[in-house]
Amino acid sequence: MNHLIIYSHPNPKSFCHAILETAVKELKSKGHEVAVRDLYELGFDPVLKGSDFVGFQSGNMPPDIKAEQEYIARADVITFIYPIWWTGLPSMIKGYIDRVFSLDFAYAAGEWGPVGLLTEKKAVIFNTAGATKEIYDESGLFDAMKKTSDMGIFNFCGIEVLEHKFFTSVPSTDDATRKGYLSKVKEVMGRF
Amino acid sequence: MNHLIIYSHPNPKSFCHAILETAVKELKSKGHEVAVRDLYELGFDPVLKGSDFVGFQSGNMPPDIKAEQEYIARADVITFIYPIWWTGLPSMIKGYIDRVFSLDFAYAAGEWGPVGLLTEKKAVIFNTAGATKEIYDESGLFDAMKKTSDMGIFNFCGIEVLEHKFFTSVPSTDDATRKGYLSKVKEVMGRF
Repeated sequence: MNHLIIYSHPNPKSFCHAILETAVKELKSKGHEVAVRDLYELGFDPVLKGSDFVGFQSGNMPPDIKAEQEYIARADVITFIYPIWWTGLPSMIKGYIDRVFSLDFAYAAGEWGPVGLLTEKKAVIFNTAGATKEIYDESGLFDAMKKTSDMGIFNFCGIEVLEHKFFTSVPSTDDATRKGYLSKVKEVMGRF
Repeated sequence: MNHLIIYSHPNPKSFCHAILETAVKELKSKGHEVAVRDLYELGFDPVLKGSDFVGFQSGNMPPDIKAEQEYIARADVITFIYPIWWTGLPSMIKGYIDRVFSLDFAYAAGEWGPVGLLTEKKAVIFNTAGATKEIYDESGLFDAMKKTSDMGIFNFCGIEVLEHKFFTSVPSTDDATRKGYLSKVKEVMGRF
């Protein structure tokens, strides 16, 4: 299968990077094709601009968006790896969605409302978070974060989210728990 | 009172801009001080970087973040005006939160968990959205969007959200409805 990993974290020593390494290793060991887009390393520009809209409408897709759309077009499975900041997507990865998931690429205006155009693709999401599982559970924020990403972004485009794992308390937990998190990543990626 | 408006939209002809104009006019007519930070016009950089963390830890706050924090420090009320994109904050305004609401400015690590440091401040949020009210209501996305902004960002820092208005169906509705939205903006700002 063709796997695409969209990775966004400013620190190459982060636990997110350990997740990335684990995911790539597991997928490659199964013989899958794996492309990684490291948005910080690429210096991806996350700000959707007026000039982008001009490009969308005139058919002159900005080259950096076009390149990312080609990666998505080739992928069977897209895995997103990023930290939860302020109960949502960090600016960098949100801007990847804002710019790359454009009208007539990711969705279209149908007669009865918007229609997803990426219906053949599956997604996996791995998030790291500083807060504890209890805080997210009690506040209903797990559910809210899933709604505003899985439903509001991916399902909207017709993408089925196979797994969305939140790894909580990452900076404060112990090594055994973090190793357990990486085992979970290996297990999820090993299903392909 | 000292009012700060954080405004983010790429199109100066957008309905968000009409909200901005209405809010500024109403506040000034009441004699309030009003500072507007137009993030696109400023060319604000929304990407939180490794060098920012180095600055936070060494006490050398990056100058663009310091400038925004000084605006917040002076404000009694902060009004956020931005469109809903993908059931969340656009990259530009999310990056404003990611970078400006830093540890030991917006919140601190307390003995029993994080503690908000902006407890004297109030917020008002005006959002525009393309989807209909019915879609957001049925899916539970209104509640999820409020949780991931009002609770997950503003209340976390100790800021009380006085009003969070979602103006739906903006591109497809009629002029009378849009005028009604602006009347609502005037009414909310007229309370100060």
